[in-house]
Parts: sequence; C-alpha cells; structure tokens
Amino acid sequence: MPNEADIIRTLQKSFACQSPEVFGIGDDAAVLPLNDTDAYVVSMDVLVENLHFRLNYGDAANLVHKSLHVNLSDIAAMGAAPLFVLLGIALPPHLTDAWIEQFLASFAGACKQQNVQLVGGDTVASERDLFISVTVIGRTPKAQLKFRRGAKPGDAVCVAGALGEARAGLAALEKNAAGLEAVKAKSLAPNALIAEGIWLSAQKSVTAMMDVSDGLYVDLGRLLQASQVGAELELELLQVSAQLKEACVQLNLDARECMLAGGEDYALLFTLDPGDYGRIAQEFEKKFGYPLVKIGAITAKDGLELREGGKPVPFTYRSFSHFGEL
Amino acid sequence: MPNEADIIRTLQKSFACQSPEVFGIGDDAAVLPLNDTDAYVVSMDVLVENLHFRLNYGDAANLVHKSLHVNLSDIAAMGAAPLFVLLGIALPPHLTDAWIEQFLASFAGACKQQNVQLVGGDTVASERDLFISVTVIGRTPKAQLKFRRGAKPGDAVCVAGALGEARAGLAALEKNAAGLEAVKAKSLAPNALIAEGIWLSAQKSVTAMMDVSDGLYVDLGRLLQASQVGAELELELLQVSAQLKEACVQLNLDARECMLAGGEDYALLFTLDPGDYGRIAQEFEKKFGYPLVKIGAITAKDGLELREGGKPVPFTYRSFSHFGEL
Repeated sequence: MPNEADIIRTLQKSFACQSPEVFGIGDDAAVLPLNDTDAYVVSMDVLVENLHFRLNYGDAANLVHKSLHVNLSDIAAMGAAPLFVLLGIALPPHLTDAWIEQFLASFAGACKQQNVQLVGGDTVASERDLFISVTVIGRTPKAQLKFRRGAKPGDAVCVAGALGEARAGLAALEKNAAGLEAVKAKSLAPNALIAEGIWLSAQKSVTAMMDVSDGLYVDLGRLLQASQVGAELELELLQVSAQLKEACVQLNLDARECMLAGGEDYALLFTLDPGDYGRIAQEFEKKFGYPLVKIGAITAKDGLELREGGKPVPFTYRSFSHFGEL
Repeated sequence: MPNEADIIRTLQKSFACQSPEVFGIGDDAAVLPLNDTDAYVVSMDVLVENLHFRLNYGDAANLVHKSLHVNLSDIAAMGAAPLFVLLGIALPPHLTDAWIEQFLASFAGACKQQNVQLVGGDTVASERDLFISVTVIGRTPKAQLKFRRGAKPGDAVCVAGALGEARAGLAALEKNAAGLEAVKAKSLAPNALIAEGIWLSAQKSVTAMMDVSDGLYVDLGRLLQASQVGAELELELLQVSAQLKEACVQLNLDARECMLAGGEDYALLFTLDPGDYGRIAQEFEKKFGYPLVKIGAITAKDGLELREGGKPVPFTYRSFSHFGEL
C-alpha cells in the first residue's frame, strides 16, 4: 500500500499550480480566497475506529473533543481562527442510541465552547466501524498566514506545547494502567493550541509553522523538506514534563522516544528569526503561562541531524504512522 | 438508532441562528460569507463500502465519479459553481496498490474535468471498510442562491433529470443482469446536473431547489417541510424513460416505485412560479437538450398528496434510506 507521503506527492503532482491564489495539498490546511486582506483556510481530518481511537478507552465526549481538536490544530498551525465545521459520521450498529446522543450533544457543546459553528455534514450508517470526518474552515489576515515552507538557515526551531504525553497516555490506556490521568487525557482529548497559533502567526519573525501530529521527528522532517533546508536538533533541549517522566517510569517507556516518535501531540512546531527569540519567548510565557522551547536550529545542509553532547547521534526509533510505516 | 432526520433536527436545534449570514444544516449545502455580492457554499458527503457502493460492481474510476458527483449535485442544487474539493479516504488492507493508484489518478482527472481543484484532505488506513468523505466548496452570486424553503402555494413542482434509473441500475448490478448498461451507469457513476443547477438558480421564478438523492417522495417531503407547504403530485406526469422501462421489464421492477422511492437519482427538484413555467421549460430544453418535467403543484395544506386519475392514492412503497428506515 502506498504510504500517505506517496499519496500526497501523487496528488500534489496532479494538482500543481492550478491557481496562484489557492495553496493546497502539503500544508496543514488549504488557503482559499476571501477578500483583499483576509483568507479562509480549510482542513479535513478522518478518524477511524480502532486505528485512531478505541471506543472502550474513553466516552463519546472524548472522541468528539479529539475529532474536533485535530482539525482545530491544523487551522491554528496556519495562524487562523476557526469559524465553521462540517461533521461526517458513519455510525455502525454496535453504537447505542445513548452513545450517539452523547456524541451529538458533546459535538454541539464543543463547537460552542470553541466558538465555531456546525454548518453541515453527513450522517450515514456503517456496517462495522465508526468513521468520523471533520472539515474545519477558519479565517485569518493573509499577511499572518504561516506555512511549512518559510524556514531559513539560522532560524531557531521551537515547540509550543507538550511532546510525548499523548504517546505515553495511549500506552497507559493500552496497558490499562492505574492513574496517569493527565497523560491519558492528552491521548483521549488533546487540546489544539488555537490562541497560541493565532498569536505566533501575528509575529513577523515566525518564518514557518505546522502542528506536530505524527511525531516531532517526522513532522520536523516535513517542515525541512517544504522549506528545502536542514536542521540540527539538540536532544538535551527536549523538556521532559513531570507527568511524562512519571508515565515513563511506571510504564517502562523511553521519554525521548515518546517525544521524538510519538504521534498526536498537537503541539506547534515553528521556526523563528533567532534575533527575536528572546522577546517572543518572554511574551509567549507571559501570555500563555508556560514556556515555549527552543530545540535546535535550521541549517543550510539537507536533512535533520540529532545531536547530543555536541555530537551527532542516530535516530533509532520507529516513527509513528497510521499506516504502520513511514 | 436515531435516523438521519432525527440527527439533523438535534443538530439544527443545537446550532439555531448562530449567525445571520450563515445558513447551515438542513439545506443541501451551507452558505458561508464571501463578499457583498457572492457567497461560498460548502457540502460534505460520506460514502461507506457495502452501504453506498460495492467494490465488485464497478472500478475505482466509477467510485471516484460517484463520490465527487454526489457532492457536486448538492452544490448545483444551491445554484453554485463548484471550485474546491477536499478528499478524505480510509483505505482498508484489501485494496491493491493498483486500485489505489487508479482511484487517485481518476480523482485528479475527474476534478480537472469538472474544473474543481483538490486543495486538501486526509489519507488514513482503515481496518476493514473503505470510507470516502468528500467536501466540495462552490461559489455563487448571493442573489441566485436557492434554498429548500422558498416554495409557495400555486408553484409548479418540477424535476430536471431522470428519476428511478439509478435504482433500476443498482437492481441490475445486484442481480448481475446482462445488458442494461445505461441504468447501471446511472447507479455507478451518476452525473451531477451542475450547469442545469446554475442556470435554474439564475431564474428569479424558481422559488426553491434541492437535489433528489434519497428518492422523490422523501426529498419532496423535505422541501415541503422546509417551505411549510404541501403538494399534489400527479403520478401520470412521471415520465418513464425507455431505459427505465426496459430495465423494469427485464428485472420485474415497478417503474413508479423506482421513481418515487429509489435513491441516488441526483436529479434536481425545484418549484417555480407557474406563470413562468412555459418560458423556463422551453429555454431549458433548448439549452440542455432534454425536457424538464412538471409533476405537480404546491398547495397551502400540509403534506404530500399523490394523485392519479384526479384522485388521491396512497404511497405504498418503502422509501430509500441508507439507515433502512425513514
């Protein structure tokens, strides 16, 4: 089976340069014309039972939260404010009426909480598995749009939001581990960093941005490829949170593997003019109550180099992929 | 399990009147603000293997065509020109690489043919069934938008496009019948009436419009409910095409049942100021090479009355529903 990168390349080739005002496949969301100053951005994500979620790990409200926030995270990564949502669901017979009602009520509630309006969708039956497709449309000043392709040699590579906790949380759920509620919640109901995305996009010194959904190593690789640059990532700079550390000890996990290769973080990965790093870091922490983390620097040479103690180290982990391959 | 109508009602209630510029759930597509003169419309459809299609009935190109056109039909029914598309697919392991490649190449080709641009989507794995979710965004002058809610007592009820052929075609495929290629094609690869929808929407005398996807009886009922009117439908006015007649004879089907209760026609159902019917019918036939058909009239009393030989007759068919219920 071709992997997602192959499929995206095939589609990019087929649809290259159709319209100069529309930027499509390859970024977190597509940009659609709106007016002289603003643009719409639109993103779609698909979640399939037993591959992206398991019904026995959480309730309908968790699943609603996750299916909405994976899209909100894409919109946030473009620097846009989410406005409209379309919900497609294929409902298998094993769902109870009560579950479906909780799902719908939760969806309505989650949209209201995020100030987005459900404007349409499709509800159909499914023979066996639950399938959820969410399309979110957001809006932003065109001047603030951020893409994957803007990173320049010398830029600082930064992350906002926790890495690895969702992976540890999934392991806790899979092993039916006691406690570890904080990391479990990160897996079941991740929060898109919408306000952070909008704020970062308004900073001129931010040169590229995307969300981390398939693991830092893979996603940073995508940003580098889009920008046609390389990067050096200093492993000592990856900050292991107290809850990740606790989960790793209890579950015998490698924290660094969770952070580099674990998926579904929905953190923001961005690059930044290094001269503005001090101001951005200070204002970010003041505004959002937690620090952003500088993890490396963009280089002119190709590829992503991991470094530790001032020396290159190999990437030895199996990266997260819904296809079970890279 | 709640049916789709219940779910739509639940969601409509939860999201009523959030923004006066946005019209959402309940029409074929949602209307999003664009500028002073124009609006975007957006529609999403979900197709599930073995419920909306079977892989052994047609090839990947047929499925691409269908999954694109069911959405284009919604856009056309609003009177808009389709512009952008997002494709979500969940690919099960039973698909071959060759099939996936044909699907992607066909999707690119079908988009080009319809002059719509694929701008994004999501490609994931599925454990068992193939799921396809397509979101289409179109654009139209706001003054030309047509909704389900505009029908007035006295209006003519009209249909553009064949009814019943997709149902007969599905029966031919299910029974593995020889020949009947025309109706089989209607089931496998229905054509959205995009040019017709845009032309009709530009006619001021067209008061309401929607596409017929779940059978004439059900969909006309939805239009009546949205417009808070009733209708009398003259069964003698339903035109049985030569290919529908042939299929019904060969497969022992009731042509009227196919036309009233068969789904997936993707015809356009609309209501019209009766004083303009003559002109519209003449110009439509001249422009599109086939006649539109007047099948009844809107009434002030509630409900849909079927009539034959000047007398009311009951609706005795089981209506098409993906849920197996109304």
